Amino acid sequence: MTSYAVTGASRGIGLELVTQLLKDRSVGKIFALSRGEPPSALQSLVSSHSQQLYHVKASVDDTESVQQAAREVEGKLNGQGLDVLVNNAGIQTANPGGTKTVSPEDMLNVLNVNVVGVQRVIAAFLPLIEKGKEKKVINVSSTLGSIAWVDKFARGPVQAYKISKAALNMLNAQYALDHADTGFTFLAVSPGWLKTDLGGQYADLDPHVGVAELKRIILEASPAQNGKFVNIHVPGMEDAHGHYDGGEVPW
Amino acid sequence: MTSYAVTGASRGIGLELVTQLLKDRSVGKIFALSRGEPPSALQSLVSSHSQQLYHVKASVDDTESVQQAAREVEGKLNGQGLDVLVNNAGIQTANPGGTKTVSPEDMLNVLNVNVVGVQRVIAAFLPLIEKGKEKKVINVSSTLGSIAWVDKFARGPVQAYKISKAALNMLNAQYALDHADTGFTFLAVSPGWLKTDLGGQYADLDPHVGVAELKRIILEASPAQNGKFVNIHVPGMEDAHGHYDGGEVPW
Repeated sequence: MTSYAVTGASRGIGLELVTQLLKDRSVGKIFALSRGEPPSALQSLVSSHSQQLYHVKASVDDTESVQQAAREVEGKLNGQGLDVLVNNAGIQTANPGGTKTVSPEDMLNVLNVNVVGVQRVIAAFLPLIEKGKEKKVINVSSTLGSIAWVDKFARGPVQAYKISKAALNMLNAQYALDHADTGFTFLAVSPGWLKTDLGGQYADLDPHVGVAELKRIILEASPAQNGKFVNIHVPGMEDAHGHYDGGEVPW
Repeated sequence: MTSYAVTGASRGIGLELVTQLLKDRSVGKIFALSRGEPPSALQSLVSSHSQQLYHVKASVDDTESVQQAAREVEGKLNGQGLDVLVNNAGIQTANPGGTKTVSPEDMLNVLNVNVVGVQRVIAAFLPLIEKGKEKKVINVSSTLGSIAWVDKFARGPVQAYKISKAALNMLNAQYALDHADTGFTFLAVSPGWLKTDLGGQYADLDPHVGVAELKRIILEASPAQNGKFVNIHVPGMEDAHGHYDGGEVPW
């Protein structure tokens, strides 16, 4: 049985991932991290899977909160390691007026959550992951963070988000370098543009479609992919705008 | 005559660039931005070029300070625009213990200066640059920010710096997109690994060598390069570690 910790699990991609993981027979304990009390959808999942699914409070912009969450997860693992960490928590702000209208406060906040937040979580959970059987750290990135593809996504005015995901890809690469040939898999994954609160109603895909692919990628991830950045595969949409061909995304 | 504003001008690359620009007959007013009072080397340059070189106080981590600097520069330009902005201010911290040992506070601080600092400066100076004749914004990046080249620079334990420069490259790309076909040139430049306070004594090149190339790249920059990321050219060192071939750096 494989144990999982998923950040940003209160809604959107995180909540859908937890929901899908619960249906997989290879999955053991799941730690659903989110700030504050769990919303009703997550709470009802926790209630109906009380021996498997645990809500753990963690604000990824607060180092002490993340470290406390790691101690709580450690306690519930009864001496076992954590097998898979999914860094999914993230925020986005839009500035249709162009990059010059992004306020420094917003940009710093997005970087603090989407990049430094991942740093806080990885650093706090790494000792547990080192004891785990799978040693997988999945960083939920975005093709919007591909500098090579900026022209492709020119119409998405989420400049700080794009900047944060390029930075996250480098963070992923740095951890991969540090852990080369040690059985670790640090993998950046773009889950597609999904109809979540963050993605909005005009997004390409229903959340369950993108998350099913995210889950597949997580399950299949191997050390040979350490440091890579991959896209989901949606048959028939390989040449669509999101380029959902399951391949590597250029930096 | 071309006017310049250079951030981080109190030492290192910034001070050397100001020194070299003063020797070029095409160069008009130069605004040397730095936090606090100018150190003696910069002060003596200002004293000996009092009609051309101005020190302007600006802390790039302080939005109000940057906006005040832009107003001061505007006042000294007497209704003219600013032709060239060089975002050079930057900081670096090293963590030989690996990425996991980078403190969240350090990472956030490096991102605040190296990425959000550039955002503050561009946003504040853009109205002046729009009135300028050259419309060049040069962002001093680093090949260390190339995700494609992480293996090449694995031995440099400046993880937060690398992450910040990948983010800066995306910031540069976002501004370039916003200003496509408008005569602007947003260009990210890697000035080489130079023997400055930041680069350290074991760096590849003397500051004047890398900065002469940086200056050449600035002078030759054209809108055809808008959004690109280029390296310096050092004859005989095209195949050296720094890959100083004057070409584009992969993302």
